Amino acid sequence: MQIKDLGEFGVIDILTRMVIEQRAGPRNAQSFSFNLMVDNGDDTAAWNPGGPIVNELFTTDTMVEGVHFTRKTTPWPDLGWKSIVSNVSDVASMGGLPAYALVTLGLPPDVEVADLERLYQGMMEASNEYGLAIVGGDMVRSPVVFITVALTGVMLGQPMLRTGAQTGDLVAVTGYLGSSGGGLKLMQSSRSEKGEAADYLRLCHRRPRPAVAAAKTLVEAEVSTAMDVSDGLADDLAKLCKASGVAGQIFADRLPLHPFLSSQFPKDCVDLALGGGEDYVLLFTGHPAKINHVVSELPEGAAVVGEVLAGEPGQVIVVDAQGNEMPSPKRGWDHFGTNRR
Amino acid sequence: MQIKDLGEFGVIDILTRMVIEQRAGPRNAQSFSFNLMVDNGDDTAAWNPGGPIVNELFTTDTMVEGVHFTRKTTPWPDLGWKSIVSNVSDVASMGGLPAYALVTLGLPPDVEVADLERLYQGMMEASNEYGLAIVGGDMVRSPVVFITVALTGVMLGQPMLRTGAQTGDLVAVTGYLGSSGGGLKLMQSSRSEKGEAADYLRLCHRRPRPAVAAAKTLVEAEVSTAMDVSDGLADDLAKLCKASGVAGQIFADRLPLHPFLSSQFPKDCVDLALGGGEDYVLLFTGHPAKINHVVSELPEGAAVVGEVLAGEPGQVIVVDAQGNEMPSPKRGWDHFGTNRR
Repeated sequence: MQIKDLGEFGVIDILTRMVIEQRAGPRNAQSFSFNLMVDNGDDTAAWNPGGPIVNELFTTDTMVEGVHFTRKTTPWPDLGWKSIVSNVSDVASMGGLPAYALVTLGLPPDVEVADLERLYQGMMEASNEYGLAIVGGDMVRSPVVFITVALTGVMLGQPMLRTGAQTGDLVAVTGYLGSSGGGLKLMQSSRSEKGEAADYLRLCHRRPRPAVAAAKTLVEAEVSTAMDVSDGLADDLAKLCKASGVAGQIFADRLPLHPFLSSQFPKDCVDLALGGGEDYVLLFTGHPAKINHVVSELPEGAAVVGEVLAGEPGQVIVVDAQGNEMPSPKRGWDHFGTNRR
Repeated sequence: MQIKDLGEFGVIDILTRMVIEQRAGPRNAQSFSFNLMVDNGDDTAAWNPGGPIVNELFTTDTMVEGVHFTRKTTPWPDLGWKSIVSNVSDVASMGGLPAYALVTLGLPPDVEVADLERLYQGMMEASNEYGLAIVGGDMVRSPVVFITVALTGVMLGQPMLRTGAQTGDLVAVTGYLGSSGGGLKLMQSSRSEKGEAADYLRLCHRRPRPAVAAAKTLVEAEVSTAMDVSDGLADDLAKLCKASGVAGQIFADRLPLHPFLSSQFPKDCVDLALGGGEDYVLLFTGHPAKINHVVSELPEGAAVVGEVLAGEPGQVIVVDAQGNEMPSPKRGWDHFGTNRR
């Protein structure tokens, strides 16, 4: 069987099981009194390095030319920015702050040095914006450009996990959905849309801003279940529900849509909000009273968008204002499956 | 200018300078009392996580199909083993033990699931052998197979650096040189050599063993300058000398050659020892009395192989038994330059 037959998530399941079942244990870490707190399967791994308070986070994310980006829709500085902030977003989804990064570049030999400098310019802008430091990396020859960033993070207290959602919880997000997908759609179309709305959407795609400040608000409010929305709300809520052993529903009429998204894409805006991806807002769940209160403390765009139900783990439906189930949204990203966008 | 015109190390110099000069600082890490001890340019980065004793290390290494390996000379389980231990070796070169790893796989959709399981089998063997735990990763579609491992490490005391070599120091290695290169050469040749010697050399290439135990001996002996030999002794000593602002010479007649290497490659064995790469022994320098003593405490194969000289930083010559300079050895790996092997 080839991995395209099994799909990305089937492959991950098999390999994760091998890693857990065949593991002799993180012996060196334990002998230094490091305590592994979050293992495979969440937005980051996490451990406590022996002290009483500070915990460390560890994540990695990769972008491959022709798969995650094209040079047409993602100029080099934006590619640098995005390769850093997609990792920052994973750290934020646990409630942490990014600390140290290693950058791996796979490069064809004909890449221009000036383009690499522009790539690093974007990386430095993101690194300085979010307070992390690039401390090393690796550079290798490759037939296609790929960029892997490995990032550590730091936080006080318990990381927010994917596994804590309970029946009856509300589901909320920290900001507008679909804007990044709208920007990508504009850039992929042949018409070069002008004006404030188009500029805003394209910027959302090219320079996404991870929800670091919102994460702090969530941790302070003792929200314990969260993840970042990188593949689209419908898919990411399904992952969170699967990890928690629950089902969920999304209220299509309550999705927070930026007015510029609605004006540019009056027909597609709900689909973009459900399946667009790369919004890097946080998705979080909890007791209704707590979630309603937290949402009121977050900036514009934060909203309750659904609820957690008993049911088949990972099953997520979308309902309209009358509570009627709507057609299932376009599936999100599967790297190897046949439903690739 | 394209990166192939500038070469790998020229590109790294430019990007490292950008990272250091344009950095606003690892603000989040500092605010958590994390102290960055080793920045860009060594085998790993290192920081102190606030406590008095334990330091953390952070490194990454990538293998790309067609560049670092072919499926012919590297079966999947060996590829898994090597992708882990090349990182373990970087951690060992600082004097540390590996702790937590993230694995990123770039995969074409037609890879067999069974092959991935064999890849992970090798990774688990290496992880369990060296006491680390795989705690997450990323999986993406790619036209070629690539594997990136990011690894943290733990250690007590001061990491060994590349920057401490001084004029008059002796240069030594922790084990035999050239065996991995010999094994690769056997596998690349059309003849399928049989017998104990060929088996040994092939195993050295397919299942290299990083010098974790030797690293402990070096740290206990207060050796402060070390790196691992991954690109070949001549190249790696040049890097260490450049980082330390000194020159060096290698005694060709004192290179530790395993008898099986000499018997299989009577003509090429010195070239393989100087330029073969992937031996994953440690290269270290220090005051002659200290180095001679440490070498006597290390297992078979450890040897003094050269000395540190005043001169053009990074200039390394090879001399024969009479002290006469020999032709410069084959250059090591440059990912983008024209001297690729």
